[in-house]
Amino acid sequence: MSKTENIYIYGRNPILEALIHRPDEIEKIFIKNSIQPASIQDIQQHISKNLIPVSRVPQAKLQNLVGRVNDQGIVALLSKIKYTDFFEWAQSLALDKHTSVLLLDGIEDPHNFGAIIRTATAAGVSAVIVPTQKQSPVNATVFKTSAGTAGRIPIIRVHDTNQGLKDLQVAGFNVIAVDGNGKEGIWETDFDAPTAFLIGNEGAGIDKKLLKKCSSTVRIPMQNQVESLNASVSAALVCYEWARKIS
Amino acid sequence: MSKTENIYIYGRNPILEALIHRPDEIEKIFIKNSIQPASIQDIQQHISKNLIPVSRVPQAKLQNLVGRVNDQGIVALLSKIKYTDFFEWAQSLALDKHTSVLLLDGIEDPHNFGAIIRTATAAGVSAVIVPTQKQSPVNATVFKTSAGTAGRIPIIRVHDTNQGLKDLQVAGFNVIAVDGNGKEGIWETDFDAPTAFLIGNEGAGIDKKLLKKCSSTVRIPMQNQVESLNASVSAALVCYEWARKIS
Repeated sequence: MSKTENIYIYGRNPILEALIHRPDEIEKIFIKNSIQPASIQDIQQHISKNLIPVSRVPQAKLQNLVGRVNDQGIVALLSKIKYTDFFEWAQSLALDKHTSVLLLDGIEDPHNFGAIIRTATAAGVSAVIVPTQKQSPVNATVFKTSAGTAGRIPIIRVHDTNQGLKDLQVAGFNVIAVDGNGKEGIWETDFDAPTAFLIGNEGAGIDKKLLKKCSSTVRIPMQNQVESLNASVSAALVCYEWARKIS
Repeated sequence: MSKTENIYIYGRNPILEALIHRPDEIEKIFIKNSIQPASIQDIQQHISKNLIPVSRVPQAKLQNLVGRVNDQGIVALLSKIKYTDFFEWAQSLALDKHTSVLLLDGIEDPHNFGAIIRTATAAGVSAVIVPTQKQSPVNATVFKTSAGTAGRIPIIRVHDTNQGLKDLQVAGFNVIAVDGNGKEGIWETDFDAPTAFLIGNEGAGIDKKLLKKCSSTVRIPMQNQVESLNASVSAALVCYEWARKIS
């Protein structure tokens, strides 16, 4: 598959086949507004089981994606990478302080997402975990902005950030929220266990309910009354501070 | 002046007045191709003296900027900030290890430039130095991407990066090139003098002639065969490593 442009498939049977045999390569599914859920029940089941994001769209949107073809009201965007299953991944690792992940609370800008993947990969972070909603797909822009690094470390898709946080805590991770009001400065933070950094959405930051569930909160020191940093810069600074301390 | 849109002035007298009375507020000057330099000699002298970037453009470009007005073949983009003079700035400071600057070898993408200003300001860097060529102006996009922080620390314009490097060395700065092949890892670098970090252009990196003139070269450690980081991420990592060590 080309890495520099987006690839779509369409039609009910081709998409059902892909859902059955390689669901981890499907990025997103577009379904025409007027399609009754009952008429594509088997497809819906596989979508739910595999946590694949769905958009309900008008016919014109489908035509934008694939042209005037017999799409049968359903189009799938294939991913530039294979998504990894969280528990399969966690079970394959010897978890210790040398294990870290980024948990993204929805990064919507593909340039930010690509930059985050590139930096996390360079810092030696073990995986990046993304929710299905308010999250950029791994599309051609992300692949390009990541400078081709997308796919070198696992990208794990979870239903939502809350689920990702729970899964990480069950697996034994300290989940540390990176937040402007964090209790501890990042320079003072020790990393003596598997660490997950929770990075907020570009606009909304970290959801307050999620913030309460984290093991701790850290802040990046800021001068000159700067209130926040770009999400990809925050992610870079905590990944590299972790890398420095465990090196 | 509005910070969220670009402001232009046009016509020979208004621009000459601005060049005489507030040259540090002029970002760039656009001159119609067919204008003879001899016919605007006084304007040219002030442009050279004040290191203001010039683009020679067709009439259609001028109309794009200011509409169908009597522009007399010359349009100026006003800056969102006031540029600072290097030596005035350097003389006003007690230079020690708590002084640092970023010297940019041309950052062309306004999103990168805005992100760099925002992070440098947050890290407590003392100033950002930019060349007149291959460098994004401080336009509305930069102002927005900097999250309104542009102007909180001085932005200094030099004729070219080589001039900036010389000026910094004369003033007593260690100029450290941030380069993938740098001799020392950033984590091992000590900052016991005024420090300038030289950051390369997004595409071309740091010019090789410049690299040789630097006091030293540092690299950011990278794993998983990642070859380079985004310019704004590299800048963020060295600014914050400096801030951590001098804090």
